[in-house]
Amino acid sequence: MLPFEHIIIIDKENKVPVYKQIAFSITKAIQNGTLKAGAHLPGSRELAKSLGVHRKTVMAAYDELSAQDWIVIIPRKYISVAERIPVLKPQKWSAAPSALPYQHDFRIGFRTVDNGVEKTNTTSKPEIIIDDGCPDVRLSPIDALLRTYRSYTSFKYAIKDANTSTEQGTVKLREELAHYLSETRGLNIAASNLLITHGAQMGIFVAARLLLGPGSNVVVGKPNYPSASSAFEETGAQLIAVSIDEHGIDVDEIEAVCKKKKVTAVYVIPHHHYPTTVTLSAERRVKLLKLSIQFSFAIIEDDYDYDYHYTASPYLPLASCEHDGNVIYIGSFSKMLEPSLRIGFMVAPENFIMQCVALRKIIDVGGDGYMQNALAALIKSGELKRHVKKAKKCYRQRRDSLDALLRDKLGKYISYTLPSGGMAIWVKLNPEFSVTRLVSHPKLKIYRVDIEHNAFRFGFASMNEKELEQAVAFLYEMFSGF
Amino acid sequence: MLPFEHIIIIDKENKVPVYKQIAFSITKAIQNGTLKAGAHLPGSRELAKSLGVHRKTVMAAYDELSAQDWIVIIPRKYISVAERIPVLKPQKWSAAPSALPYQHDFRIGFRTVDNGVEKTNTTSKPEIIIDDGCPDVRLSPIDALLRTYRSYTSFKYAIKDANTSTEQGTVKLREELAHYLSETRGLNIAASNLLITHGAQMGIFVAARLLLGPGSNVVVGKPNYPSASSAFEETGAQLIAVSIDEHGIDVDEIEAVCKKKKVTAVYVIPHHHYPTTVTLSAERRVKLLKLSIQFSFAIIEDDYDYDYHYTASPYLPLASCEHDGNVIYIGSFSKMLEPSLRIGFMVAPENFIMQCVALRKIIDVGGDGYMQNALAALIKSGELKRHVKKAKKCYRQRRDSLDALLRDKLGKYISYTLPSGGMAIWVKLNPEFSVTRLVSHPKLKIYRVDIEHNAFRFGFASMNEKELEQAVAFLYEMFSGF
Repeated sequence: MLPFEHIIIIDKENKVPVYKQIAFSITKAIQNGTLKAGAHLPGSRELAKSLGVHRKTVMAAYDELSAQDWIVIIPRKYISVAERIPVLKPQKWSAAPSALPYQHDFRIGFRTVDNGVEKTNTTSKPEIIIDDGCPDVRLSPIDALLRTYRSYTSFKYAIKDANTSTEQGTVKLREELAHYLSETRGLNIAASNLLITHGAQMGIFVAARLLLGPGSNVVVGKPNYPSASSAFEETGAQLIAVSIDEHGIDVDEIEAVCKKKKVTAVYVIPHHHYPTTVTLSAERRVKLLKLSIQFSFAIIEDDYDYDYHYTASPYLPLASCEHDGNVIYIGSFSKMLEPSLRIGFMVAPENFIMQCVALRKIIDVGGDGYMQNALAALIKSGELKRHVKKAKKCYRQRRDSLDALLRDKLGKYISYTLPSGGMAIWVKLNPEFSVTRLVSHPKLKIYRVDIEHNAFRFGFASMNEKELEQAVAFLYEMFSGF
Repeated sequence: MLPFEHIIIIDKENKVPVYKQIAFSITKAIQNGTLKAGAHLPGSRELAKSLGVHRKTVMAAYDELSAQDWIVIIPRKYISVAERIPVLKPQKWSAAPSALPYQHDFRIGFRTVDNGVEKTNTTSKPEIIIDDGCPDVRLSPIDALLRTYRSYTSFKYAIKDANTSTEQGTVKLREELAHYLSETRGLNIAASNLLITHGAQMGIFVAARLLLGPGSNVVVGKPNYPSASSAFEETGAQLIAVSIDEHGIDVDEIEAVCKKKKVTAVYVIPHHHYPTTVTLSAERRVKLLKLSIQFSFAIIEDDYDYDYHYTASPYLPLASCEHDGNVIYIGSFSKMLEPSLRIGFMVAPENFIMQCVALRKIIDVGGDGYMQNALAALIKSGELKRHVKKAKKCYRQRRDSLDALLRDKLGKYISYTLPSGGMAIWVKLNPEFSVTRLVSHPKLKIYRVDIEHNAFRFGFASMNEKELEQAVAFLYEMFSGF
């Protein structure tokens, strides 16, 4: 309830009767929007008490207001501001005057990077949603996670523990994760080499802020993961885009660049590149590592979907090879469990992690200690591994079903290379069909569309057979309608 | 399981028998830490299959390894790397060579701001933990929150919804919050004036990044909330500290500063200032707003515990008065529900919010859509209001109990002013007792200690009567022992 004694000003010296002063104050509050249409007002007894006036005075004020239709009085129920009063457009807020001290300072534009189009802010309710490669939360052990979470909030000691030193991530989670990463990726690390981030993006942002600045050069793929490019640009660094082919990023081009100018960092998504889903070949991996030592640049390895590789077993990360500490390895649980969980991690030399922790603390203090410890328990119990194994099998089937569907139904409209892993297929449209047509359809929502390459990402992991069929059928309708 | 075919290199041309090559590869992997002590190895059948060799060959390799004590074979159970092998210190990670490209680049130091000391990284298990003002999670409706959360993850459509456009916060939460803030704080805003952040700190960080930069000036209180100072310094801005007295920040000093140099922003914590817990007086609020218009600076209003004001009803935020859009209002649910929830919010003019959203997306993409919608439901149902009302009553009692305990037991060692609200008391030690002595005690952990003022924050909200008594008794022991 609002502190009405601060809203209602009464001046006993004033000749205007007190009840009129009260009524006037309330009218003013309604007019300037402090009191909104339908908002409840305190009972006359309550208000009289807080204003230090007689109850009859307040009743008189309320009567006057209701007579003027400012308020509605339902006896013995409630008193509220009338509904018919238009909710005034916020004055001081939306329509901020250009005198606003920070008005001019529009540092960051909304990007539609490398001609990609994002429709995330659409308001229409689309019938078909094609994401860019999200897991199926319906398969995830969220129950187990939340049960554990709940149990911690009722433990006396967990209460205090969970809220401290989460800027690096809880010790429990970092220890479990160090073990998990060594078993699954051969990363020979300790908990001190880990920073738990708020999603993989924060790992990229933090690394960028610490490594890059105006004048420094960072190499990225073309096309590249837009949010990573944004993070690099935000530091004022120069982005140098090198081509991506079927074997991943072109390391010879990188070498050529390094010979021309000082490169501070190279950003790679070894498997599977975003958006094109290609896997970086073994030869290029070896050469890239050699270059990083020769030219002393940091490799930011974004390995967001290592766990989902189908045809062969995955390549070990660059981070688990000889790299003289040049590799910053970034991963996430968003792809393993569910995107909105927002728990990611960074692996790096201890001295770099220390800097990251200091910066991370400034950004958002830390993560959710309870959730992190619940996740640690999920890993320790082996539940995470079981889930990933199960999900991998399922996503592989979905990839193959989508492959079959695309060949049968859309074969003559599109082309694509079946990815060896991941959660999405990079679908290229034949020249006669424009991807912009797909974007413009109100009933269809596609997360990642690339106009320059006339292509889009078809995320299959989050859709079951039936949903895949519906989506492809919908696309077929559109293409045959072109 | 590790992809062993990438770890084990077999050269059929090589004169060394294949089983020896396998054994050698595994020994190497153990030595360089890729395989850790106790790590399980695949069964001979499995490994033979993935290496494309005869099973007998693998068995020969395993026999050799176990003969050399590298591995342990428990027939029909498992094969694992021997436990007695020392877990090698991560070579490439902890001990990163100084040639590390980013080694030199230690931009951010660990702060102990204004001589404050943080012991968050202590490893000892303290018996008594005195936080700096955290809510009691045991009172919070976490159950309801998590139940709702769970229900969303099983809804087909919530799945897709929750993961999109959370960079500003879900529409559900922003709409509920706009209503809640208008009812409780008289903030006349729309959902478009809101950014949902990952805790209040992210609001401060984002505002700082957009408003400040090298050469710009920002006014803060002395002493100030350390994490806010860090966020401002990180932008390269100049911090100008003005004094805080019993009426809050000294606005005349601010005016004097504005006359000397261009001030871009003023950071205030109107009630209750951190760490000293004082409330900004009405007169100063009015004058500060006038100054912000006169000198055109932004006011960053950190109102983290508005909801907990005991003696009178709270002052309305600066943000709900006339301010020509100069006020950026920052709040958090961490204090209302639980600290690790990490959901905060920023209220600002729409055009500024748009910039914040663009930046926030780069930092960490967005928040947890499920949790945000669950919180929205909690607000809509009125549960949050009921909780805050209940908690307020409880915290007020705890403040009064602590007041009584401090007077009775520690009266002759300390001094303090009872705060009119909030979750902590700012306790000053008499000169003859040094606060550093408290910090050094292994069984005691205090979140916020200020050596310059020989004082610390005694958070009372998270402790019940019994816990308060224990804490004060413990302090009594120490003081009388001095």
